Amino acid sequence: MDYDDQYHFRMPLRVRDYEVDSQGIVNNAIYLHYLEHTRHEFCRQVGTSFRQMQAEGVDPVIRSIQIQYLTPLTLGEDMESCLSLRREGARFIFVQDIYRLPDHRPVVKAECTVVCLENGRLTRGDILAGPFAAYL
Amino acid sequence: MDYDDQYHFRMPLRVRDYEVDSQGIVNNAIYLHYLEHTRHEFCRQVGTSFRQMQAEGVDPVIRSIQIQYLTPLTLGEDMESCLSLRREGARFIFVQDIYRLPDHRPVVKAECTVVCLENGRLTRGDILAGPFAAYL
Amino acid sequence: MDYDDQYHFRMPLRVRDYEVDSQGIVNNAIYLHYLEHTRHEFCRQVGTSFRQMQAEGVDPVIRSIQIQYLTPLTLGEDMESCLSLRREGARFIFVQDIYRLPDHRPVVKAECTVVCLENGRLTRGDILAGPFAAYL
Amino acid sequence: MDYDDQYHFRMPLRVRDYEVDSQGIVNNAIYLHYLEHTRHEFCRQVGTSFRQMQAEGVDPVIRSIQIQYLTPLTLGEDMESCLSLRREGARFIFVQDIYRLPDHRPVVKAECTVVCLENGRLTRGDILAGPFAAYL
Repeated sequence: MDYDDQYHFRMPLRVRDYEVDSQGIVNNAIYLHYLEHTRHEFCRQVGTSFRQMQAEGVDPVIRSIQIQYLTPLTLGEDMESCLSLRREGARFIFVQDIYRLPDHRPVVKAECTVVCLENGRLTRGDILAGPFAAYL
Repeated sequence: MDYDDQYHFRMPLRVRDYEVDSQGIVNNAIYLHYLEHTRHEFCRQVGTSFRQMQAEGVDPVIRSIQIQYLTPLTLGEDMESCLSLRREGARFIFVQDIYRLPDHRPVVKAECTVVCLENGRLTRGDILAGPFAAYL
Repeated sequence: MDYDDQYHFRMPLRVRDYEVDSQGIVNNAIYLHYLEHTRHEFCRQVGTSFRQMQAEGVDPVIRSIQIQYLTPLTLGEDMESCLSLRREGARFIFVQDIYRLPDHRPVVKAECTVVCLENGRLTRGDILAGPFAAYL
Repeated sequence: MDYDDQYHFRMPLRVRDYEVDSQGIVNNAIYLHYLEHTRHEFCRQVGTSFRQMQAEGVDPVIRSIQIQYLTPLTLGEDMESCLSLRREGARFIFVQDIYRLPDHRPVVKAECTVVCLENGRLTRGDILAGPFAAYL
């Protein structure tokens, strides 16, 4: 599987200077913001959104995240944030990797597990699966 | 009016390292977080809260903020965040000053104007005024 | 002066969902991040950057911000962030307005005053003025 | 091993309202801030600090984080952030759990792996191990 086939979605992002901390690198928590924003933009692309899911009473929530920090990003750097998706029962696993541009060096590699709540109770995830059908 | 009489509320805060940006000082936006947190802790002290106001359908919103940055805070520093309140019709004006500890050097001086919405419409602010009666 | 002439720089931004707080609107402090990011992208356009200024020992710092909140932004909304610049002696005043897209309703109106430090001492600002010469 | 023996350090924290996102719960990235702040306060207790380590040319950096989200925190809630530490060669593994107060329900469980760089190169970690000697 080559690089182009590996992901279902990719988007460019640029470090905002306030995301860089006193060590001169993007703070570790900020990458979770990048990952979340990427998931949401992916949702948009497949025709759904957070706002819409909440309006329908469905609440996607994060169950766990594993993230490796490989290359720190710093002031003004560009990146590509990439995502692929698989389903394991009620759990949706987003494999999310960020690469520095222009050299495509890996920045972080992460797996984010999401489940869906409806009225606070775990669902089988079928509503979330709908818009993602083409990728599952 | 001496220093002790000048404010209705004061609380200690410590810089969290992730709030310091690449210039080695607390980022300008973070002070608005400090000010907001101080207003909310003041609400708690007078027996109300954001959560409770929202539950009652009242939405306090910021109309304007004026802030002067006098002394930058850096890693691990302590501060005292001070607040006094006055009302001008529908507007509540929080005068909020932060001092560095232990030398009490002024860090920021700010005025934050808050109004209350109910179902998205401006109110006269009487519901917000209730818990603050002792200070107005 | 028509709308197109009014600003020296404008850029599109989209609300990231994590910037929306429990009231369902972009948190007041986040707009200061938008304004800062816009100033930095403007710097880029004129051929300088934070990183470069710091490397030269020049530290632009915020002295004051006045901001009015006119229309709240919410999940997934788009905006245009606009900036014009004037100099008053050692002070650089960034007039920064954000408009919601596509209806161009004003979101915030702000004035941010910046001065330059060199080795911690206030400068006349000539180094910062250099790249901005075309606009002053 | 009972609850009191399980951790090397524990500190109270309270949710700040701006940390709660549009879903009404503390945003997933914010917990990484809580964890980081807890590590730094632990460093303080053992007599060192970020500021001091950076001054000595040592840069502790995060290599990986695994975090499980068990119970969401919301507006105004209190928590206890707990930490224990072990060393595996050059890697320091912070086991970090957060509990909601007053019911001590687990909120997140995390493992954060930290290594030390000196002039950008991986060290054996002996300088970081010094202040932590009592716990390793």
